[in-house]
Amino acid sequence: MLKEAIYHRPKNNFAYAYDKDTLHIVLQTKKNDMESVALLFGDPYDWKDEVWQTQTVEMIKSGSTALHDYWFIAVKPEFYRMRYGFRCTDSSETCYYTESGIYSDPPAEISNYFCFPYLNQIDVFQAPDWVKDTVWYQIFPERFGNGDPSLNPEGTLPWGSAAPTATNFFGGDFQGVIDSLDYLVDLGINGIYFTPIFKAYSNHKYDTIDYMEIDPQFGDKETFRRLVRECHQRGIRVMLDAVFNHSGYYFPPFQDVLDKQEKSAYTEWFHLREFPVKPEPVPNYHAFGFVGSMPKLNTENPEVKAYLLKVARYWIEEFDIDGWRLDVANEVDHHFWRDFRSVVKAVKPDAYILGEIWHDSMPWLGGDQFDAVMNYPFTNSAINFLAKNERSPEDFANSITNVLHMYPANVNEVAFNLLDSHDTPRILTLADGEIDRVKLLYLFQLSFIGTPCIYYGDEIGMEGGQDPGCRACMIWDETKQNRELFTYVKNLIAMRKTIPAFGNDGTFQIVMYDNEANTLVYQKKADNRRILFVINNSTEEQTLGLPDFPEKYRSELVVGTRIDTVYSREPVQLTALDKIKVSPLGFRIFEYRNEEMV
Amino acid sequence: MLKEAIYHRPKNNFAYAYDKDTLHIVLQTKKNDMESVALLFGDPYDWKDEVWQTQTVEMIKSGSTALHDYWFIAVKPEFYRMRYGFRCTDSSETCYYTESGIYSDPPAEISNYFCFPYLNQIDVFQAPDWVKDTVWYQIFPERFGNGDPSLNPEGTLPWGSAAPTATNFFGGDFQGVIDSLDYLVDLGINGIYFTPIFKAYSNHKYDTIDYMEIDPQFGDKETFRRLVRECHQRGIRVMLDAVFNHSGYYFPPFQDVLDKQEKSAYTEWFHLREFPVKPEPVPNYHAFGFVGSMPKLNTENPEVKAYLLKVARYWIEEFDIDGWRLDVANEVDHHFWRDFRSVVKAVKPDAYILGEIWHDSMPWLGGDQFDAVMNYPFTNSAINFLAKNERSPEDFANSITNVLHMYPANVNEVAFNLLDSHDTPRILTLADGEIDRVKLLYLFQLSFIGTPCIYYGDEIGMEGGQDPGCRACMIWDETKQNRELFTYVKNLIAMRKTIPAFGNDGTFQIVMYDNEANTLVYQKKADNRRILFVINNSTEEQTLGLPDFPEKYRSELVVGTRIDTVYSREPVQLTALDKIKVSPLGFRIFEYRNEEMV
Repeated sequence: MLKEAIYHRPKNNFAYAYDKDTLHIVLQTKKNDMESVALLFGDPYDWKDEVWQTQTVEMIKSGSTALHDYWFIAVKPEFYRMRYGFRCTDSSETCYYTESGIYSDPPAEISNYFCFPYLNQIDVFQAPDWVKDTVWYQIFPERFGNGDPSLNPEGTLPWGSAAPTATNFFGGDFQGVIDSLDYLVDLGINGIYFTPIFKAYSNHKYDTIDYMEIDPQFGDKETFRRLVRECHQRGIRVMLDAVFNHSGYYFPPFQDVLDKQEKSAYTEWFHLREFPVKPEPVPNYHAFGFVGSMPKLNTENPEVKAYLLKVARYWIEEFDIDGWRLDVANEVDHHFWRDFRSVVKAVKPDAYILGEIWHDSMPWLGGDQFDAVMNYPFTNSAINFLAKNERSPEDFANSITNVLHMYPANVNEVAFNLLDSHDTPRILTLADGEIDRVKLLYLFQLSFIGTPCIYYGDEIGMEGGQDPGCRACMIWDETKQNRELFTYVKNLIAMRKTIPAFGNDGTFQIVMYDNEANTLVYQKKADNRRILFVINNSTEEQTLGLPDFPEKYRSELVVGTRIDTVYSREPVQLTALDKIKVSPLGFRIFEYRNEEMV
Repeated sequence: MLKEAIYHRPKNNFAYAYDKDTLHIVLQTKKNDMESVALLFGDPYDWKDEVWQTQTVEMIKSGSTALHDYWFIAVKPEFYRMRYGFRCTDSSETCYYTESGIYSDPPAEISNYFCFPYLNQIDVFQAPDWVKDTVWYQIFPERFGNGDPSLNPEGTLPWGSAAPTATNFFGGDFQGVIDSLDYLVDLGINGIYFTPIFKAYSNHKYDTIDYMEIDPQFGDKETFRRLVRECHQRGIRVMLDAVFNHSGYYFPPFQDVLDKQEKSAYTEWFHLREFPVKPEPVPNYHAFGFVGSMPKLNTENPEVKAYLLKVARYWIEEFDIDGWRLDVANEVDHHFWRDFRSVVKAVKPDAYILGEIWHDSMPWLGGDQFDAVMNYPFTNSAINFLAKNERSPEDFANSITNVLHMYPANVNEVAFNLLDSHDTPRILTLADGEIDRVKLLYLFQLSFIGTPCIYYGDEIGMEGGQDPGCRACMIWDETKQNRELFTYVKNLIAMRKTIPAFGNDGTFQIVMYDNEANTLVYQKKADNRRILFVINNSTEEQTLGLPDFPEKYRSELVVGTRIDTVYSREPVQLTALDKIKVSPLGFRIFEYRNEEMV
């Protein structure tokens, strides 16, 4: 038994309140080390030597990574509090893991045990209910649709007439989005994430000049109000991009600093290192990276904080937006984000707060700051395996299991699962032009735990390399769109919405993988249904036997066979699962139903 | 190499901002597994393949527990941000540990690495500066001194005439404390923690009736104001006990509930489970434990919150108290404590906030809630080894090293290190009446990292079992006091205050232990001085050789040899350290000075 690998610590992804009555407890052990793990627990104020012996529940192995197994159990302590420890058993011995160490016999003294002192309802992580049923669509407004040429900035190029560069303009605007809302409804999405729309210098608008104004190239406030209304009428939520880590170079307070230097009233709005303040050759103030045109805002300064919180409130109160995506969220202080949450939730309790963080984000996901983060660990896993074929199915299984164990389950359900964005190459380009790989990516993304986001144009097969390449104009000419891909994505979205086990109601588990054949099988399970996803990540046809589930009813879910059919259920012979064939870069989906199944 | 035992995760005790420029990074590995560990790091926005190779710093093994080694390094990234990983080397191989896993070669892609995104100054954990230089004294007001018999409650017994029971009274009051302040000054303490003083029914006052009133048996507000002023004039800080988890049975809102039941305006002030509300036989509402006379307050209710925050502010604003000790702090919601901190620090930025939590408290010590917790893991380790002799020196070394690695260093410096309290038996009783064991306990407590607290009367050798036994009247008759113990404690306090390495300026490390001889050597080091503490926890004289430090100057610190000498420095022969003798349950303290030492 490898005692050194046993790990648990509350309150985080290892021990947390899932809802007002339920605690989730997770234990890490060395992979394939323990035969069983049990949770021993009791009420801290009714602790008897025998309590922990009677209150013992077996934990379930919820997944494995390259090095570790994870064990899970949900418990509902009657008085919302518990002290607990773990009983770990391998083939030859049993040990008891507590906060004070590992023992061969369970210590009687309560002070040794882990503690979840009280499940206070207000501390339960709770994202808005609507989020977990949302399929997002990310729009880069300058490049989605030019609906009002009268707004075109000087030098605007004809739509799609040139490759996107860091500085060119194509005149995308709000009217262009409004004109295409029915296209989005047809696809099935019900949330739009807009990259910045506020007055700024660049085409990407991440260098804000005025947080209280719409950039005139997109339209005016009335048009934006109409856009939000039109979206809401179609059941589509609207999320804006809050760039609060830094301002743009032409943000008036920064201009004031450049102008008046030490005498400016805004010297405390930024992180200046010396005078005279100058952006070249390297900025002598803190910036986003070393980008002199994006000076870092001093969010610790009460004036700056008050200004930015006013901005946060304004766009919700005045325009009824549904969420904020927070740019470079990890570099802004935690105090700011806690107050941001209070302000936002006070105005609109079910607004969604999404942080842009590319790494492990547990410090922001304790219920006091964000509802979710952009799930790049998910992205990396999916891309490396399914787009680039650079990882084995085993590596993928390990990393995806890790992704699911990084955060609490209620956090995972609202994770913002993207495959690409305005900051990365497009998936078809990452997949070297292989549409079948893009299909596998969408299959995985749209059947996974979380809230998926489609980057505009990916669904019709647009290509594009690293920024600015990935920011090309949306292709509206249907003859140039990959309509078959569109239908495929549309069908998957429909399946996610209509089959409970497909979406967030289903629990995810890796079932098996074969590194040689480059195949992977995972399942989603909800109530009395289980869906098995069989992925062939190789370029040859593969034959594999599936585990024998004793179900009464089996069928195969076939996606997008006919344009007018979302999907169909085909009966499957019981024997057919012994050796099922999967085409090169193909997949099959089997559904099992059993009324007795739990 | 045992890869499964390697663990790191920011932001907590493994990666945190120590001050506005400095990050502390800690790695856990299996005990005695790695020969060396190095931190590889670079700026996230200046990341080149070679960056991590050039920015490599060796980490220092900061301690070992039963199963693990801990590796430590402090770094000051120029732009307050870094991505990082670890290079671990054992006798036969080297591996690279990153957020995405363990590799035999360091991954080039930055997204694999751990991230400390930005050191925002406001997020640095910062307790008040004065705390780490404070030696606390805990007073249970009903039992410290009866200075104003006119306030005696009905049935008050003559001072010290009977054993303390759960219900008897001896008339302790504020005047009794004021009368004894010079005694406390003589001892050398500079902070008093008072258990509750607000109007309540019991002798312990944890069942509050009115949070805005002093209990009349202690005095009135004017007397309290005078008490605080007299303390401040002597350089003594005053901390009160905030019992916000629950009220008392006679708290008017709870009485209103009992009286009017469903029709009470206060039904949302508590956690009622059903009507009619009744305390017997088991309360049908949530309570402290199952104690019906202490109904749990609903701190999520804005009215309750506003009331309690008003209380928190009032006693600081009106009476200038210096800190709040928070009773049953772990069972109150985190949102409440965050707002509590804001309110308290707004009124008095250097007020101390101390939570009563007996278990691992990292979730409350992130800089947003408490400044410290009552350090019971420290207490348990010290008592089990030095008072009860139930643990080996090795077990003690492991558990104390664990205590120091549970939290960030800036948290440890203000940890509230108690040996006993009104909730436990007294140390002399725990040590079965052995004064020499009590002396070892005080030696360890007063030379350890943190802020020590002496429970009233322990310093003169009072005995007492589990509550209420530990709450006897303070003995003021000097002939019944152990004056030699008093002088000993006084001398240790003086050493802590005057020798930098003795207190929080010194870094603590276990040097060696011998389970057979039951001896332990630890050191404190600061600047060019090192102090070696040699403890003989056995009842026989022990002889041991000390490590050979190449110091220029050595001396022995002798505590309390003469009543009028705080301590003396005796010269030590260089050869004398080869075989030093330590008396049964005795100790020796050696000091090394070397101008070149770092």
